[in-house]
Order: sequence, then structure tokens, then C-alpha cells
Amino acid sequence: MLDDSSRTALEPVVSSLEKALVAGDIDAAVELFADECYWRDLVAFTWNLKTSEGKEAVRAMLESQLAHIRPESLRLDPAEDVTGDSDLAEGWIEFETGKGRGYGHIRLKDGRIWTLLTTLSELKGHEEPRGVRRPMGAEHGHDRNRLTWAEKREKEAAELGYKTQPYVLIVGGGQGGIALGARLRQLGVPTIVIDKHERPGDQWRKRYKSLCLHDPVWYDHLPYIPFPDNWPVFSPKDKIGDWLEMYTKVMELSYWSSTLAKSAKYNEATQDWTVVVEREGEEVVLRPKQLVMATGMSGKPNIPEIEGQDIFRGEQQHSSQHPGPDAYEGKKVVVIGSNNSAHDICAALWEGGADVTMVQRSSTHIVRSETLMDIGLGGLYSEKALAAGVTTRKADLIFASLPYHIMHEWQIPLYEQMKERDADFYKALEDRGFMLDWGADGSGLFMKYLRRGSGYYIDVGACDLVIDGSIKLKSGSDVSHLTEDAVVLKDGTELKADLVVYATGYGSMNGWVADLIDQETADKVGKVWGLGSDTPKDPGPWEGEQRNMWKPTKQAALWFHGGNLHQSRHYSQYLSLQLKARYEGIDTPVYGLQEVHHLK
Amino acid sequence: MLDDSSRTALEPVVSSLEKALVAGDIDAAVELFADECYWRDLVAFTWNLKTSEGKEAVRAMLESQLAHIRPESLRLDPAEDVTGDSDLAEGWIEFETGKGRGYGHIRLKDGRIWTLLTTLSELKGHEEPRGVRRPMGAEHGHDRNRLTWAEKREKEAAELGYKTQPYVLIVGGGQGGIALGARLRQLGVPTIVIDKHERPGDQWRKRYKSLCLHDPVWYDHLPYIPFPDNWPVFSPKDKIGDWLEMYTKVMELSYWSSTLAKSAKYNEATQDWTVVVEREGEEVVLRPKQLVMATGMSGKPNIPEIEGQDIFRGEQQHSSQHPGPDAYEGKKVVVIGSNNSAHDICAALWEGGADVTMVQRSSTHIVRSETLMDIGLGGLYSEKALAAGVTTRKADLIFASLPYHIMHEWQIPLYEQMKERDADFYKALEDRGFMLDWGADGSGLFMKYLRRGSGYYIDVGACDLVIDGSIKLKSGSDVSHLTEDAVVLKDGTELKADLVVYATGYGSMNGWVADLIDQETADKVGKVWGLGSDTPKDPGPWEGEQRNMWKPTKQAALWFHGGNLHQSRHYSQYLSLQLKARYEGIDTPVYGLQEVHHLK
Repeated sequence: MLDDSSRTALEPVVSSLEKALVAGDIDAAVELFADECYWRDLVAFTWNLKTSEGKEAVRAMLESQLAHIRPESLRLDPAEDVTGDSDLAEGWIEFETGKGRGYGHIRLKDGRIWTLLTTLSELKGHEEPRGVRRPMGAEHGHDRNRLTWAEKREKEAAELGYKTQPYVLIVGGGQGGIALGARLRQLGVPTIVIDKHERPGDQWRKRYKSLCLHDPVWYDHLPYIPFPDNWPVFSPKDKIGDWLEMYTKVMELSYWSSTLAKSAKYNEATQDWTVVVEREGEEVVLRPKQLVMATGMSGKPNIPEIEGQDIFRGEQQHSSQHPGPDAYEGKKVVVIGSNNSAHDICAALWEGGADVTMVQRSSTHIVRSETLMDIGLGGLYSEKALAAGVTTRKADLIFASLPYHIMHEWQIPLYEQMKERDADFYKALEDRGFMLDWGADGSGLFMKYLRRGSGYYIDVGACDLVIDGSIKLKSGSDVSHLTEDAVVLKDGTELKADLVVYATGYGSMNGWVADLIDQETADKVGKVWGLGSDTPKDPGPWEGEQRNMWKPTKQAALWFHGGNLHQSRHYSQYLSLQLKARYEGIDTPVYGLQEVHHLK
Repeated sequence: MLDDSSRTALEPVVSSLEKALVAGDIDAAVELFADECYWRDLVAFTWNLKTSEGKEAVRAMLESQLAHIRPESLRLDPAEDVTGDSDLAEGWIEFETGKGRGYGHIRLKDGRIWTLLTTLSELKGHEEPRGVRRPMGAEHGHDRNRLTWAEKREKEAAELGYKTQPYVLIVGGGQGGIALGARLRQLGVPTIVIDKHERPGDQWRKRYKSLCLHDPVWYDHLPYIPFPDNWPVFSPKDKIGDWLEMYTKVMELSYWSSTLAKSAKYNEATQDWTVVVEREGEEVVLRPKQLVMATGMSGKPNIPEIEGQDIFRGEQQHSSQHPGPDAYEGKKVVVIGSNNSAHDICAALWEGGADVTMVQRSSTHIVRSETLMDIGLGGLYSEKALAAGVTTRKADLIFASLPYHIMHEWQIPLYEQMKERDADFYKALEDRGFMLDWGADGSGLFMKYLRRGSGYYIDVGACDLVIDGSIKLKSGSDVSHLTEDAVVLKDGTELKADLVVYATGYGSMNGWVADLIDQETADKVGKVWGLGSDTPKDPGPWEGEQRNMWKPTKQAALWFHGGNLHQSRHYSQYLSLQLKARYEGIDTPVYGLQEVHHLK
């Protein structure tokens, strides 16, 4: 849909915005925005992740930031097409600030700015050594005292954390910690990633054996080394484990395996952390300036307290601890919960020859994987999207350009399509007694993920087993209590069990903070994740961005990082630049530090 | 240089060629070629690597192959530009054959075909599972007996080579064996790669510690997973080692480390090999159908027999065994030889504080690394080339499109530029007594590499040490004999030595065949490598392609693979397709199997 009229519409607005911003003419800048408008900024203008909603919010942001940020050279990216027409035009923008270079996206509605995305790409003078800036490797010439690459790596491994201190400590070495660690390495910020497991990737390897990613490969790339094009659509867990392990190695992370974080304390006077870790059984005290919690956006496993748990004679496991079906052939298993993990575990147990019952306590949003790929993701993350020129970077930015406030409006029609396409499937599930929902406002899976990180299953086959009765379903009644050998529901049903699996989700990430630092700091930071959408498990008020993720928190020098592979890839960029700026002593005036409304 | 006139020139010729080939009208086809013409075919038409030189050779090839190959749908690739003008036009072609799909390149001179490259890209019905054909990974649905990815991998590891036999056995797991192993894995050909070292990459790790690749990163990519853009220009050896190790893992090769090939015998009756290997100390007998020698294009280390080697009391090492300088601080070292390894080892020894003398027995071709990158490689393999749209694949094909017979004509002017640019540098070397050459015909480094694989040094700093006398140079006199504590030259010079390093190169790869199979087979196959250019160490007659490399040999089911990273990447494609075709029982009539003119 190339259309000169969209360029004609966009160019003068972008040019006027540039002029107004450079001149510091905030009135003129605000005037270019529509009454309904959203300026989503990722670090470039706000040193925060912040969506300014409405003209007055845009004005307030500019009044606070413009003089510090000194934007310039804002223009349409000449290498990219603009699309749309004079009613609704969109295009890509590039710009500079005093400290960095940025990239973004703009949408006009009837000639005024409807959505604006500005993101920080790199810091001036601190560009990553890539492409034309890549290191030489061999040091040509000669020097009697130089060390080889291997010797330097060895020296660093021996000294970092002992003789020298990391600037950043990342607690948790899954995809989040690894992606961030890789970016910080490239940016030259001394960083240690610690993880309790023996090897990078064990976070995946140790889950139940049939686990595969529920997101397709195009959505899952890490920064710097994309998956090769022979990589499966849905990666088996052990294969992802191997990839993460090799990635950690070739990206040269300082990654401490078999290392537990025991305690952390912020020193106001010296503005650094004292973190006690146990590395392969030996205590090491670290003094990083910045502490990143990357222990999983899911937070700590959540096991409901149920009467009788102490007298039940079988096994009880949280879903995150479940080893897979091999030991349970012929056993009776009750799985409490009906989201992703519950379905995957039930299906694997059935395959393994267990007698398995799923207890559905509340409604669940179900989408068939293929349908989700076709309708939900296909435009941005697919082989087709790639062929149409939508690279991973572009897809990430397009996704980021949709303000959370109106994102559901884009989503609802997609889920209506899905509902129609798979109507027979949904009817069969409901006939079996399965309680379905489509999210509070019918906006489906992504919004549920962003709001609460739970409440759905991407069907890769378990639903058929529910429909045909292979997996027994008990829905509509919560658990009353456990006996010595059974789970008893509130409606009186008794389910005999050798194993009870609690697929009951996770708490807020600040639960980790309470454990590692103290409850006071956990409360100071407040709930992590969610948008304040005032829907189940995501109470208001509206936040506009995900709580506490990838941005400054109320606790100095404490950060949260995590999420799926997409988020680990994309948001690690903004978190790494925030950390790099602080490492280099660049002034980072944070605009709109969020308030805390909920403790967990 | 887009120019419609070149398309106008190319299109009718390509169209006429297509018509003639489809109609089987060999006269008409040959008529389209210039009197001086070269049709280089990589497997597509000849099931061989074969350059047909001149119209009669083209006619002979077509008479033999056309009816089998059944080419069709030959056309200019519509997605690529053509370049040049009506005098000299060039472009990209695509075509099909009865069995496969191909790609190539064409140059017209005055309206007739001057050079034609045809390469086989894939076999119909056996396309690689990449991109839209990639595997699903997760097997949606349910099956009580299915194995997970990890279980399948475990089963294969336990059974292949024991309960089941590989179709291909690759002896040698450096970059060559690994790249070929990866391609065969993707093609579904059961393959084992064996290597004597403990870990993939040890082939590099165990070399002298200052070693870095002499070729830049753009030239060095492996298939499927290119180096990320933060990768150094000249990779340190340990870093390449780590990359190869992770590559072997994530590409899922069946790679047997710590495994020695003890003996191999071809069974005429059953048309397979009996190969006895020792895997981690335990004997295993393998019965592959195809045997690939990938033990290094350099062949076996070549140590000259010199009187007194038995009485010399210091250490003597071939350059391939040299561990680096650490143990030789303050020691006297004589390095015999003056090519790449000799220079690298001398420089590292000097850095390590040894007293080092280089004995130059014959002239050496020297090019400064930076100059080689700028002038020699920059057009095809560089950041600039990439920015100009010359992807690695394109660069490989452009390079392959230059027939060996006239390749030196492209090369000579480049080396004349280099000579001029670095005139002061060369004068300084000659003033110090260093004997320089530019190859027999002034065609420089690549031709020397292709003809003899030796005779040059890419300067990354050692020359300055020769020039300033830090590395002592004795040139022009060969070694006479060794005494208990010295190397004595024919001119009477006595060089005291604690260590003698023989940087004296390697033999022909069929030396490995003599060791592993028998001398008779080694002689049957003959010399490996070289073009028959009738220049030093590459005796005639003219071969047109590299002897025995990546193509059928006089010994059934015996193949040679190797070379630098570029060749390991590019030629593994053609070797893997030849092996896959045989695995699938596709008819592969080989045209022009080479004659043996030299035994080593």
C-alpha cells in the first residue's frame, strides 16, 4: 500500500515536530497531536518506559524533559516506506538526542499525531562494537606483554567478583538474564549473571519432559544471534536449553552457574549493593552498583493453602517442580488448575499412562496454537511476515508502537475471528463442561499475558484429550480439602490421588525481593507486572506501562527484567541502555517514576 | 551500474540457451558460446566439479550429459539486477534439471557466453527443512508412545554406529567435517563425524596460543549460522574453537570426540567400507557406504629428513605441534621455514622472550593483512560488500564464477596495486635480506593457495619484527645438518638452538589415505589439491578444478573435503548434495572423472 499521499501527510508533520522540539516550542509541538493521542517513549525522552496519554500529558512530559533531552534531526527514515492514506498514515522516524540516537514510529489520524513511539537505540560515544565497529580480534603488531583472547577471558573469570566488582549483578540466568547479560557485555558494562542451576538452559531442561515453547520461533529470537532458519517452529525445551548454553558461551557472558543469591542490602552511603551469594558451595560477597532481578516474570510459585495438605500421603508438587510423567504410569494424578502448565502436564501424564484429572476452578482462555499463529502473530512474526520485509526488529517496534491503552482494540477483532474459525472446537470443550473466557473485554491472550501473565492455554493438543475424556475434567468447584489419599472438592466430589500437582501459578516478582532483600523493600517497590487495567488480577488505577518492568523503581538501583523470549530480547535493549548510561555517568533525569498502588 | 542494455544483451542469449538445452539441440547451444569460453559446473550438469574450457569441451560435456540431466526453466533471476554493458554483460540465472534446482551466473562478451557457472542448489523432493519447511518441533496432538526431542537424540546417540550404521563417515571434525556434517544432518543423511581431539574446536585450541584467523570474518561464516555482527574481524583461535563446539551441538551433529580412525577397507562386494575406529579407547567397527576424508587440506605434517636430527639434544617440533612461546623464554629457537606458521610462531616466540631465528630457504609471498582485506577481498567479503548487497552466498558464487584458467588474470592487477601501495614495506623487507615473490605469474596469494596451499604469509605484524631485527633472519641458505646443540646451514652458519621448529608445511591429503587404507588406494587416487598450473609445487597437466576435492575420485565412495572456512562452507554444499543423491538412490552419471597424473 505505497501511497504518496501518506508521505505527503506525514512529512510536514514530522518536520514541524522537529522544528518545535528543536526550538523548545512546546505549544507548537503539542498542537501537532490529536486530542486522543499517545506518545510512548522507551528511554529516549523520559529515561523511563512511559506512555503519555493525551495532549496535556504530552505537554507535561515535554515541559519536564525537553531541555534535558535536546532532540534534533527528527525525520522520516528515508530508507523505509510510509503506508496508509491521508486519513490514517504511518511511518518510521529517526532522531537524535543530546546523548543518543533513536528510532521510532508515527501514526497520523486526520493529519494529527495519534500514536508516537520513540525509542533509544544507542548512546553517542558508546555505540556497540558491531558491523563496521566490530573488534579486530587479532591485534596486529607486537607487544611482549599482551594477553591472548583466552588469557584475557581467564583473567576476567578469575578476577571479576573477587578482585574487581561487577557494575551490574543479574540474579537469574534464564533467557531474560542471558539476553540482558549479552547486551551489557557488548556495551562494556562489567556484569555477572548468577543462576542456581548447574548449566545455562537448565531452567528449561528441568521442566516436564514434553514441554515445548508455546510461542513460535519468529517471536523467540535472542539479540545478536537469531535462530537459524532450520530451527523448529516450537522449540523443544532441551533444544532451547542447549541454545541458551551455547549463546552464553559464545557471547562471552560472565555467568556463574550453581550460584544462589542469599541476601542483598542496599548501602545508601556508598550507593551500591552488598549481595551475598553462594557459588558452588562457597560464599562470595559482591558489591554491584546495580541489581537486576531476572528470576522470572512469574515470580515465586504460588501454592494455595489447603486443609489436609499435611496429612495427604501421596506426593504434592507445584507445576514448576513437576518432573514429567515417567514415574507416574498407572498412578492417579489430580492437577489443580487449568492454564498452560496444567494442560501440558495433564497431556504428558495421560501419554505416560497416568489416570489424570484436571480441576478447573475458574474459566480459562483457550486458543489453538495454529490459529494464534495465523491470526494473532502472523502479520508480525512468521515466515510470511519476514518475506514481506517485517524483520524481527521491525516487528518488535510495530508491536511496541501500539499503546497499551488501546491495544485491546486491535486485539478484540482478531479473537473474534479465532472464535468463529474454531467454533466447533469451542463448542466441544463447553459440552464437556469446560469453562471458557476470552479475557475481561474479549481481547484474548496477549492482553491477558500483559495484564496478569496467566489465565490461558495455547492448545497444542491437550484440549482434544479433555474433549474425548482422556483427561478427566472437574470444573466449577474449588478444592475443599485433602484427605490421606484424595482431593475433595467443595461439591463433595472425592478424587483419589497418588500425586497432586498445583498448577496454581505464580506470585508477583517483588516476592523475590522480600526473600532476597527484605519485606520493606518489596513493599516499597510494590507489585510487579500488569497494566492497571482493572480486570481480574490486574487492579487499577491505570499505569500505561507494565509495573516495574525494565525501568526505574522506587528502590534505587533495583531493576526487574524478564518475560517471554520476545520481551527478553526487546526490552533488554532499553534496560541495558539505562544501565550503561548510569555506568558512564550520563545524566538520566527520570520522568514519571511510577507510584505504588499494590503491594503484590 | 544498472544498464538496460545489459539486460537486453543477456535475455535473448539466456532464452536461446534454454530453448537449445530443452530441445537437446547441442549445436545451437554451443553456438551461443564465445570461442574462448568456460562453463564451470558444480554438480548440476556433470555430477562432478568440472570446468569445460572451449566450445568443443562444452559440446563434449553436453553430448554426455544433456539427455540425463534434462535442464529446463533456465532464465535470468528476475530478483537480481544485471550489470555491465553490451560488450561485457553479466547476470544471475536460475534453472531446473530433472533431479534438482540450480543457480548460476553468466557473463557475455560481445554477445556470446564467455563464462557460465551452473551449481546445484537442491534436489527435488529432498529440499532442506528450512524456512517455510522448517520442522514444527512440538508435535501437536497426542500419542502415548512418542519420544521427546531429547529422548530421540539420546536414542540416536546410543544406536548410531552400533545398532544402526551411518551412511557417511567423515574422518576429521574441524571446520570442514563440521560444515559437511551439518549439511548432511539437514539433508537427513545418517552421518558420523569422528575426531581425535577431546572437544570440537580443539583443532584450533591446541595450536600456538597467539594464533588468530588470517582470513576476515566475512569470508569465514559456516552454513546456517553466520557469525553475529559483533564477531571480531580476525577470530582468535580459542574463540573459533568455542564457536565450532557450540555449532556442532546446536546443529545436532553425531560427533564422536576422542575417536581415532585405525583402518579402513573398501568392500567391493557389498560396496561399503569397514572402518575400525577407537572411540575413547574402545574399538568400534563401522560400515559406512561413503567415506569422507576431512583431515585438513594440508595433509600430513612434512618434516624434512636432516642429518643430525637424531643427535640434536634440544626439542624438535613440526609447526603443527608447537605449543606457543610460554616454555621458551630466554631460549634459543630456530624456525625453519618462512610462510604463515613460521612468521606467526616467530613473532609469538619473540613476544614470549625467546631468541628466535627464521631460516628462509626459498622466496615467500608477503601481503599485508589490511591491504589484502582492502584490495583483495573487499569487493566480495567485507562490511562494505554486505552494505552493497553482496551477501555471503552471492560472494561465494561470484568467486566460483571465475574459471580457474583465467582467475590469475583478475588477480594480477590487484597484486600490482598492493605492491605499489606497500612499496616501502617491501623495500624494507628486501633490505633486510628477505626473499620475496608474487607467485609464478605475479598472481599472488589466492592463486598460491589454490595451486599449492603454501608459499605465503599474510602479515599481521611479524614482518616489522623481521625488518627491525627482533626476529633474526637467515635467508638464502638451506639447512645442512644438526649438531648436538645447533642448526648448521649450507653456507656454514651455525645457529645455536634449544628448540627447532619445522615450519615446513604439509604433504598431499592422500598421505592420510595411505595411512588409513593402504598405499595402493592412495596411489589410485593420486595427488590431492592443486590445479595443474605447472607452477612450483603444482605440476601440470592442467586440471581445471582442484584435484580430488569435493568430487568423485578414482576410488569408489572415497571423498576429500577441507580447506579454509570459505571452502568448508561453500563446497560442503556440493559434496553434501552428491552424497545425498547417492543415499536416495538417484542416478548420478559422473562426467569427466579426473585422471591421476601425480602420486603426491
